[in-house]
Amino acid sequence: MVEQELLYEGKAKRIYSTDNPEIVRVKYKNSATAFNGEKKAEIAGKGRLNNEITSLLFSKLMDSGIDTHFVEKTSELEQLVKRVTIVPLEVVVRNIVAGSLSKRMGLDEGVVLAKPIVEFYYKRDDLGDPIVNEDHIASLELAKPEELQTIKEIALRVNNILVDHFNECNVRLVDFKLEFGKLNDGSILLADEISPDTCRLWDKETNAKFDKDVFRRDLGNLTDGYEEILKRLGGLSCSK
Amino acid sequence: MVEQELLYEGKAKRIYSTDNPEIVRVKYKNSATAFNGEKKAEIAGKGRLNNEITSLLFSKLMDSGIDTHFVEKTSELEQLVKRVTIVPLEVVVRNIVAGSLSKRMGLDEGVVLAKPIVEFYYKRDDLGDPIVNEDHIASLELAKPEELQTIKEIALRVNNILVDHFNECNVRLVDFKLEFGKLNDGSILLADEISPDTCRLWDKETNAKFDKDVFRRDLGNLTDGYEEILKRLGGLSCSK
Ligand SMILES: Nc1ncnc2c1ncn2[C@@H]1O[C@H](COP(=O)(O)OP(=O)(O)O)[C@@H](O)[C@H]1O
Ligand SMILES: Nc1ncnc2c1ncn2[C@@H]1O[C@H](COP(=O)(O)OP(=O)(O)O)[C@@H](O)[C@H]1O
Ligand SMILES: [Mg+2]
Ligand SMILES: [Mg+2]
Repeated sequence: MVEQELLYEGKAKRIYSTDNPEIVRVKYKNSATAFNGEKKAEIAGKGRLNNEITSLLFSKLMDSGIDTHFVEKTSELEQLVKRVTIVPLEVVVRNIVAGSLSKRMGLDEGVVLAKPIVEFYYKRDDLGDPIVNEDHIASLELAKPEELQTIKEIALRVNNILVDHFNECNVRLVDFKLEFGKLNDGSILLADEISPDTCRLWDKETNAKFDKDVFRRDLGNLTDGYEEILKRLGGLSCSK
Repeated sequence: MVEQELLYEGKAKRIYSTDNPEIVRVKYKNSATAFNGEKKAEIAGKGRLNNEITSLLFSKLMDSGIDTHFVEKTSELEQLVKRVTIVPLEVVVRNIVAGSLSKRMGLDEGVVLAKPIVEFYYKRDDLGDPIVNEDHIASLELAKPEELQTIKEIALRVNNILVDHFNECNVRLVDFKLEFGKLNDGSILLADEISPDTCRLWDKETNAKFDKDVFRRDLGNLTDGYEEILKRLGGLSCSK
């Protein structure tokens, strides 16, 4: 057996090699960060919850025909995924106005958009992840135009699936961030995570926040909301 | 004769009604502003130079088949233009990295882009003119998708014409901002101004700046550069 090597340590996860060069092991951390790393904390239970929620949501997406990197959850904090070359874009899909969209465009938080908005951010912590358009992406060669088209299409399909899925759990999917990766054959896979760290999730009745905004805005105990999402997605209070 | 009424006062121009409801009079001011109005000065001669340079460039574009609002220059500071409903977008075309593109994307100023980059900014001084993508524009109904397509096509045609024209005058057109307007019949016209206030213009040999960056960055006498541009566009040192 080959020694497992730490390939990359990010803000929320560590990536390790495995015996299989096409597979990596993702280990979720308990670290919470916001505002591009300016605000930080260790929150017990967060890694376990995000690992479990991500695994549930990626399984759901694969059942619905989306190609993803997900292989299997192997422990409380770990999952195996296909190793990809990450496209250095954060792909944000928005259904309801919140966060930076509200601030930048002068729109009221909570306004339901007639059609989802897709945004691309250049994944560069040192630049504060600037928003980019298709010409910037082409110019910086972050993705080929046809890859970007594919990414946008998959992002909107993922949105449709997840909006319905969360809706059945009495949760509004306000917005979320996706990352995509490429396999050696050039195919594009949904990668990274989908968790309350990377989504805004509001209770359908009360608009209570079950996501990282609780940490960003000091609104209470972060993991309570994450536990609630996990329960609704897999547990008793969820119809599915 | 109907009394002429001040319809709008902007940072650089005043717009007056005329006897003809389809025509307005634009009067150029000597005010210089930068950083969304934070830096201000009155600069003698600037209004005259921008009026003259804009008139020359709009005439050139019309000769090259671009539909614009321009009717005629009527005095040192004034021109008549077709009255339009301004599309609330600043359309920026970039050939060479400079200014906010350099800062936002971590690119070196002066790098020549393989293909021009087009950017749209929501014309909202109170929000600091945020950059927007096609989904934001559709969502805020700032322009219809087909209008935006037309605007982008015209912007790139204008870029081709002006790059060549300035090149013949030994000037590099680094980037520039356009505004577009709509007539009652729905047709789209190039509007506003094209001047050293709204372009970055560098000497082909020395890269000396002949534009508003001289004011933004306190690099010397602003109108010297504007005079030089006017001379090269219409005067002795220009081949056309
Ligand atoms: N399937 C995969 N193969 C390789 N890298 C991946 C895969 N999925 C996600 N990653 C990357 O793992 C890194 C660690 O994740 P994370 O801690 O969230 O990092 P970051 O601080 O960059 O957000 C990220 O750069 C992410 O893009
Ligand atoms: N043909 C036109 N018809 C009506 N308004 C116009 C036309 N051309 C330009 N404008 C508008 O005239 C206003 C005055 O110009 P300016 O002083 O540059 O204003 P600003 O401070 O908004 O940049 C701007 O809002 C501009 O969009
Ligand atoms: Mg991450
Ligand atoms: Mg203006």
